[in-house]
Amino acid sequence: MPKLSRKGIIMPKSPIRKLVPYAEQAKEKGRDVIHLNIGQPDIPSPKVALDALKNANIDVLTYSHSAGNIEYREAFANSYKEIGVNLKSENVLVTTGGSEALIFAINSITDPGDELVIPEPFYANYNGFASSCDVAVKPVISKIEDNFSLPPISEFEEKITKKTKAIIICNPNNPTGYLYSKDELEQLKDIVIKHDLFLIADEVYRDFCYDGAKHVSVLSFPELDNNAIVIDSVSKKYSMCGARVGAIVSKNVDLIQTALKFAQARLSPPSLGQIVGHAALETPQLYFDNLIKEFKSRRDLLVDGLNSIDGVICPNPKGAFYCMPQLPVDDSESFSQWLLSDFSINNQTVMMAPGKGFYSKESDVNNQVRIAYVLNKEKLDNAINILAKSLDIYLNK
Amino acid sequence: MPKLSRKGIIMPKSPIRKLVPYAEQAKEKGRDVIHLNIGQPDIPSPKVALDALKNANIDVLTYSHSAGNIEYREAFANSYKEIGVNLKSENVLVTTGGSEALIFAINSITDPGDELVIPEPFYANYNGFASSCDVAVKPVISKIEDNFSLPPISEFEEKITKKTKAIIICNPNNPTGYLYSKDELEQLKDIVIKHDLFLIADEVYRDFCYDGAKHVSVLSFPELDNNAIVIDSVSKKYSMCGARVGAIVSKNVDLIQTALKFAQARLSPPSLGQIVGHAALETPQLYFDNLIKEFKSRRDLLVDGLNSIDGVICPNPKGAFYCMPQLPVDDSESFSQWLLSDFSINNQTVMMAPGKGFYSKESDVNNQVRIAYVLNKEKLDNAINILAKSLDIYLNK
Repeated sequence: MPKLSRKGIIMPKSPIRKLVPYAEQAKEKGRDVIHLNIGQPDIPSPKVALDALKNANIDVLTYSHSAGNIEYREAFANSYKEIGVNLKSENVLVTTGGSEALIFAINSITDPGDELVIPEPFYANYNGFASSCDVAVKPVISKIEDNFSLPPISEFEEKITKKTKAIIICNPNNPTGYLYSKDELEQLKDIVIKHDLFLIADEVYRDFCYDGAKHVSVLSFPELDNNAIVIDSVSKKYSMCGARVGAIVSKNVDLIQTALKFAQARLSPPSLGQIVGHAALETPQLYFDNLIKEFKSRRDLLVDGLNSIDGVICPNPKGAFYCMPQLPVDDSESFSQWLLSDFSINNQTVMMAPGKGFYSKESDVNNQVRIAYVLNKEKLDNAINILAKSLDIYLNK
Repeated sequence: MPKLSRKGIIMPKSPIRKLVPYAEQAKEKGRDVIHLNIGQPDIPSPKVALDALKNANIDVLTYSHSAGNIEYREAFANSYKEIGVNLKSENVLVTTGGSEALIFAINSITDPGDELVIPEPFYANYNGFASSCDVAVKPVISKIEDNFSLPPISEFEEKITKKTKAIIICNPNNPTGYLYSKDELEQLKDIVIKHDLFLIADEVYRDFCYDGAKHVSVLSFPELDNNAIVIDSVSKKYSMCGARVGAIVSKNVDLIQTALKFAQARLSPPSLGQIVGHAALETPQLYFDNLIKEFKSRRDLLVDGLNSIDGVICPNPKGAFYCMPQLPVDDSESFSQWLLSDFSINNQTVMMAPGKGFYSKESDVNNQVRIAYVLNKEKLDNAINILAKSLDIYLNK
């Protein structure tokens, strides 16, 4: 039998996948599993986007331009005016979701053996994309005691070598929900300019900010015009994860042109996704007002509830729709597995994403979990109750 | 300014792109450009597929499973019974077009520095996918004198080294239209088994066979269960290139599971594309009967017309919708450019894909072009007339 690639073998499996069989067993026992592990919003997609699909007059479902339909790119570029950033279509490459935007960005700036510095915990798939490019991730630790704020810049300095090509941040952060301040971004600005690095900012949760906090895009610093690469997506903003439409956005046109070569090889981003993505630009403000109101009240319910449980510590995140509490257990993966295999209240249990999956292999943080609040408040209430009772029993086992 | 990657810089640009500015200039002059260069079918997509989109009841446009919706995978696997191949859903990974299927397949079996042996001329993007994985393409020459049939197996033997991981074929072939015989596939079977290699067969044009010729899938050889990887797609078969839905199909479940890891990192193939892809499985046979009838008559018109031009030699391809004639010019790229910039009849000219783009850098074949017959017969007739007259003038310049 022919051999598979080394990188295929070491390619990380999604950490949650280990728990999937246990979740399936729980369901086979007739249990209702509350999925706190999924980052898929439950909010209906904007009507204006779905209507565009129904009204589309398609005869031949053709390729689009490799960089995305020009009308969409222009309208998309124009939409950045809302956050005070002036762009042209040449600054935008439409991709198959934020995922492909990250893959093209990494391919455009790294060769095998190069390195990326990323604050951990980080979105697990950064590891996967880096592995598929044979690139190493060098983590810098964001501590729960500091609410997962930006690690001291000296720790970035320690990780930067000649092989470092970029710092990657996710802002607001998946998995912690932390929203980087302007001051923190200034620090990152200085260090990437000093070392002539790219700064990749995954801003797909940009619209999810609470308590009046304002998101600052890396594109708003003119000094970073050559360095800043923004990853964008329609997935979370419009609750359209299945559209698979994202974008690389950069004022560095050489970078966009290089990424375009990878885009040309795969021909075109999805045409149907671009129809809904383009139409979604007309989503009324009321949609977002209601969205933020709903997510804020969920966050308040969840974070207050978690902190009211003995031994649970949960920073109060200002963005995205995740939180990353520390539980009074040695190993949150074993606990999460036990919840699925051995615990239920009124035939209900919860599934969480073990924190370990968001840390590098070297990390010894084993007691955190990522919880997504993309469920209604009744389910979140039940989940908090299940966690409180189950921890009591688990710790006294 | 931070440096772009070496692989981003050497990543080949689509060869046709050099001609795009000349085509745009021709259009600005008010000329009608007949695009013989595009591989996008002009046939309407099946009604059953487009109707499914209009009738889809979507509330939240969610991710699908990373391997594709299970219902679609099952129905898709089942559809292989039509070509006598028994599959289960575990043999299928749904991808974002055939492009992503190729990227995942190459990622799953190669590491940087490895090699792929491919008969040339070959689909230009194989080079792009290989470059993005830092893998070298080792070409074996298919000669126009032999109608682009499989090169002698001894020439494959010469190119195989310890770094070789797979042979890639496209059957029927893009760009030549050549349909490999069962005997040729038997030869490939023996050599990949002998050297323990994968055999990747890009079979996206499988349904386009003429003159009663029958396509033989590499999946029909039980001895190749571990070695054969088929690349499939809805793009050409159903004239739905913009759906961006393809698949890796293999009886080697380890290969599918490894590719799944890359698929998990990018989360999900397009959900809307899967709706039309799934519905398209119910396309009535009449659709394909009409399709083949139309393409066969176009091929006949085109190939006869080309061979009637002095000095033009065009093998008669049995499959796909391309042909690869040799023209009586030194450099088909210069000639193609001249057609766009300096020639027209009744304000009409043609755009062709220079053959060089389908050969490796080492090749000295400069007088071929790829012509796609995805245009109606009136346009093809005009194109032949333009080619005949223009060659006469070009050669006597």
